[in-house]
Amino acid sequence: MTIVHSSPSVEAAMQHFNVKNATAIQVGDLYFFSGLTAIDLVSLEISLADVRTQARLTLENFDAILDDLNLSLDHVIKVNAQLADVGEFAAWNEVFLDMFDAPYPCRTTVGAPLVAGDIEIEIVAASSARR
Amino acid sequence: MTIVHSSPSVEAAMQHFNVKNATAIQVGDLYFFSGLTAIDLVSLEISLADVRTQARLTLENFDAILDDLNLSLDHVIKVNAQLADVGEFAAWNEVFLDMFDAPYPCRTTVGAPLVAGDIEIEIVAASSARR
Amino acid sequence: MTIVHSSPSVEAAMQHFNVKNATAIQVGDLYFFSGLTAIDLVSLEISLADVRTQARLTLENFDAILDDLNLSLDHVIKVNAQLADVGEFAAWNEVFLDMFDAPYPCRTTVGAPLVAGDIEIEIVAASSARR
Repeated sequence: MTIVHSSPSVEAAMQHFNVKNATAIQVGDLYFFSGLTAIDLVSLEISLADVRTQARLTLENFDAILDDLNLSLDHVIKVNAQLADVGEFAAWNEVFLDMFDAPYPCRTTVGAPLVAGDIEIEIVAASSARR
Repeated sequence: MTIVHSSPSVEAAMQHFNVKNATAIQVGDLYFFSGLTAIDLVSLEISLADVRTQARLTLENFDAILDDLNLSLDHVIKVNAQLADVGEFAAWNEVFLDMFDAPYPCRTTVGAPLVAGDIEIEIVAASSARR
Repeated sequence: MTIVHSSPSVEAAMQHFNVKNATAIQVGDLYFFSGLTAIDLVSLEISLADVRTQARLTLENFDAILDDLNLSLDHVIKVNAQLADVGEFAAWNEVFLDMFDAPYPCRTTVGAPLVAGDIEIEIVAASSARR
């Protein structure tokens, strides 16, 4: 098992919110991640932009975390997204199709009241890539 | 890693909704699946039937996908169900008990606003069977 | 694969609610668990206490189940929590920080209408410990 702590900027953002979970934990060929919402890693604030921008920022933050692990969005096998407003599915779907490349990962999207922001994304990654 | 694309009927349904996620991805002994709602694979429309019928249809669709992988509902280890109306838990529980056989898989059920339909089901399966 | 059935008290609580899912299923180095809400294992009733007490009780119940497997909360790698009221995040976060020890597991928290109780918790554990 390897417990992944993030880059100083992600760690700073988490401390800002008194959140101390691991960023990711690897067991064998699988990497489990904590859910992320759209945190601006410069201001350490939750993005107030529209859901499309928040979704992109959240996936970019995952991409940076994956990069620290010598992985990329191509290693993601599962995406769970929760939208504050399920009516925004089309916007989220567009970002998903744009940020990932085919063959796409598995995905489930539902609505949920969120602690912060308008989209919460959780991923599972594997040590080998989808493509 | 093996990325599973579904039968032509499931693929057609997904294209109908501009959804391009993988149906399932296998890593080692585990199979992760995308969440499914009750899609009628003939009409390619979301079922408008009651939640009991929708739950059964969704599990039947998973059963067909599993069958393509030489697996069955007996290989499912985890079920996550999201109900548009948590008051329908008893109906969903009845379908769960009917469609699966003992020893049953793990399960979590909560409510959620759904993108479509009245129940969204996600599963994890293993390469060996529960029974 | 090993299917875990719980202690007589947990089994009794599940039968009380006509719930027959497995408590946990092990595949290789991973243990997947069914979601739990705050069941008082003596009265077999859902706790009516505040969310802080419910969260603690739920994690204590997981701890007892893990103990039966010769595991502990130190083996948990992933926690998914659903709150009936996301405004209770701070209370839940306090219990999380208190019940787990650093380095903490991964975690995702969102809101959801719940079948019972004010918090539903689901975990994934590994055969080796975080510390």
